Amino acid sequence: MKTILLNELDCIMSEILRAYGLSEKNIKTVVNVYLMRTKAGVGHHDIYDFIPRMQMLQSGTVEKNPAINLLHSFGCMENWDGGNGLGEIVCSFGMGRAIELAKQYGIGFCTIRNSNHYLASLPYTLQAAKDGFIGLIIARAYPSMGVPGYKGKIIGQAPNGYAFPTGDGRPVVLDGCMAYVSGHGNLQQMVEQGKSVPEWWGVDSDGQPTTDPAKLLVGTRYPIGEHKGFGYTILFELLTGVFSHGLILDQTEGADGLKNVTSHTAIAIKADALMSMEEYEQRSAELIKRIEARAPGIRIPGHRTHQTMVDYEKRGEMEITDTLYDQLNALADSLNVKRL
Amino acid sequence: MKTILLNELDCIMSEILRAYGLSEKNIKTVVNVYLMRTKAGVGHHDIYDFIPRMQMLQSGTVEKNPAINLLHSFGCMENWDGGNGLGEIVCSFGMGRAIELAKQYGIGFCTIRNSNHYLASLPYTLQAAKDGFIGLIIARAYPSMGVPGYKGKIIGQAPNGYAFPTGDGRPVVLDGCMAYVSGHGNLQQMVEQGKSVPEWWGVDSDGQPTTDPAKLLVGTRYPIGEHKGFGYTILFELLTGVFSHGLILDQTEGADGLKNVTSHTAIAIKADALMSMEEYEQRSAELIKRIEARAPGIRIPGHRTHQTMVDYEKRGEMEITDTLYDQLNALADSLNVKRL
Repeated sequence: MKTILLNELDCIMSEILRAYGLSEKNIKTVVNVYLMRTKAGVGHHDIYDFIPRMQMLQSGTVEKNPAINLLHSFGCMENWDGGNGLGEIVCSFGMGRAIELAKQYGIGFCTIRNSNHYLASLPYTLQAAKDGFIGLIIARAYPSMGVPGYKGKIIGQAPNGYAFPTGDGRPVVLDGCMAYVSGHGNLQQMVEQGKSVPEWWGVDSDGQPTTDPAKLLVGTRYPIGEHKGFGYTILFELLTGVFSHGLILDQTEGADGLKNVTSHTAIAIKADALMSMEEYEQRSAELIKRIEARAPGIRIPGHRTHQTMVDYEKRGEMEITDTLYDQLNALADSLNVKRL
Repeated sequence: MKTILLNELDCIMSEILRAYGLSEKNIKTVVNVYLMRTKAGVGHHDIYDFIPRMQMLQSGTVEKNPAINLLHSFGCMENWDGGNGLGEIVCSFGMGRAIELAKQYGIGFCTIRNSNHYLASLPYTLQAAKDGFIGLIIARAYPSMGVPGYKGKIIGQAPNGYAFPTGDGRPVVLDGCMAYVSGHGNLQQMVEQGKSVPEWWGVDSDGQPTTDPAKLLVGTRYPIGEHKGFGYTILFELLTGVFSHGLILDQTEGADGLKNVTSHTAIAIKADALMSMEEYEQRSAELIKRIEARAPGIRIPGHRTHQTMVDYEKRGEMEITDTLYDQLNALADSLNVKRL
């Protein structure tokens, strides 16, 4: 492992993005998304995904400075075209719009088609929470999830998450998907750690139950609560693909010729719409305090992440693997920008 | 079993409610909720809950004609006090307000405190879907659900559901809660049918895993996807109890002295806010068609219910147990109203 300053991480990401031609505004946006998620300390869907994402810029499969255009609007709802931009740029924009609409209407709903992988939900939802809003964001993805009793991959995992601020200063945050476990990331980590998975999480490539994460990784994962999670996922597909005028379920190409793009829907709810912020803070803190009182030591979603982020910010540095360190430097070298 | 006309069911419920002093408008509302849910053919959370609900009117623990008053509003969001009315009346009102707000703003959000058990989500969400809206409704309840790794009942099961219209004429509907299984109803039926439950659904009263539904019924149920379902449930508690100025988590009495009341939040989204209804119908039908194409024979949530409702409406009659038949007649007799 190598210890590096967060500032160094910021610098090398900025330099690389600048070399690819991103505008200063877009650089700041993308770096912010990677830094926020990286400080959560998860080890996937963060800086460890930066190199593959840069390959998308390198190959030109995504637009470096996308034109994001309004398609439709009605009251507190907007539908934009993300211009095939990086999901990090498109979703930051989308949550920003949702927040602006929520300031005016209490709720803001922004659905965007022609977006790409958003990395994770946390950077967007946490931004909303810091601004005094409940933030929710939903992504859609090509079918990777099955349903018990049926064969094959039927629907996407619907990556999604929320964050809301509380009066105790620690936001509550959920960042995941509708499957028991995501493939890339969590399941990959379980393979490396030699762990087993509960047999109800999914089936292997032959459709048989498995407790081997490696077999589940190439098999089919199941939605949480089986038909229940399946039901929520259908709703999420509606609110993203259908509402955004984007690709639906397993469509791979839109009328505009764009392939394998995705849709995102960001929703913001003004925390102090129906009460003062002081009262919201008191009541939200009361909710968490009462949960904790019923189960001392219980882990409230987001609390550990919050502590990790605070610790990293205090230290101003973090550890990354030698492999990632070398990869970042190799990319920097190839682009003739300052290495770590 | 006794076969009775739906019209007879309507009549006897109306007569009983009239005898309890409900206004004609409230009678129509309550009867509509019970008829809709009963036609879904589930056998619990429907006409089979009518007698216990009438006992609440009899004892005066709920108001027969509640004063429902606006507390706060901002843009597309409203917060009402349900006046300790029947959940069936309060939630019908709440979804009605959410729909009115959604007509104006695209989304309507109506949170109501001092409500009571809403029976089930389907009558409210399906009404929204019939009117061209995506309807969602969330209830909160006293803690009955645990979290793996911790003892006891930590949080409510967050009964909730949604419905959305589609171009194929069959709405997609989910009607349940955040636990793997609800106690009253589903689990009770499993006990009667001698079925076993998956061991990950919860623990018995000693905190031990069980496959016996009778033991789970008196034990603690777990949320779908463990920490994931727990996370969504916390959000639902925020959007109901906290947002409504109602009871929070395990509070049992409000500042107004009302005990054991609950809060409901109804959300409506205008299906044709961002596209014409024709396009919405085409795109929503496309989503369902594509899911069905990937898994022939798959059960889309709501389809079977839709068919059951259509069949009952066509027949104009249905079967109820002799016990229920006798109970309804006994109640009618005691109130001096026309029996079945």
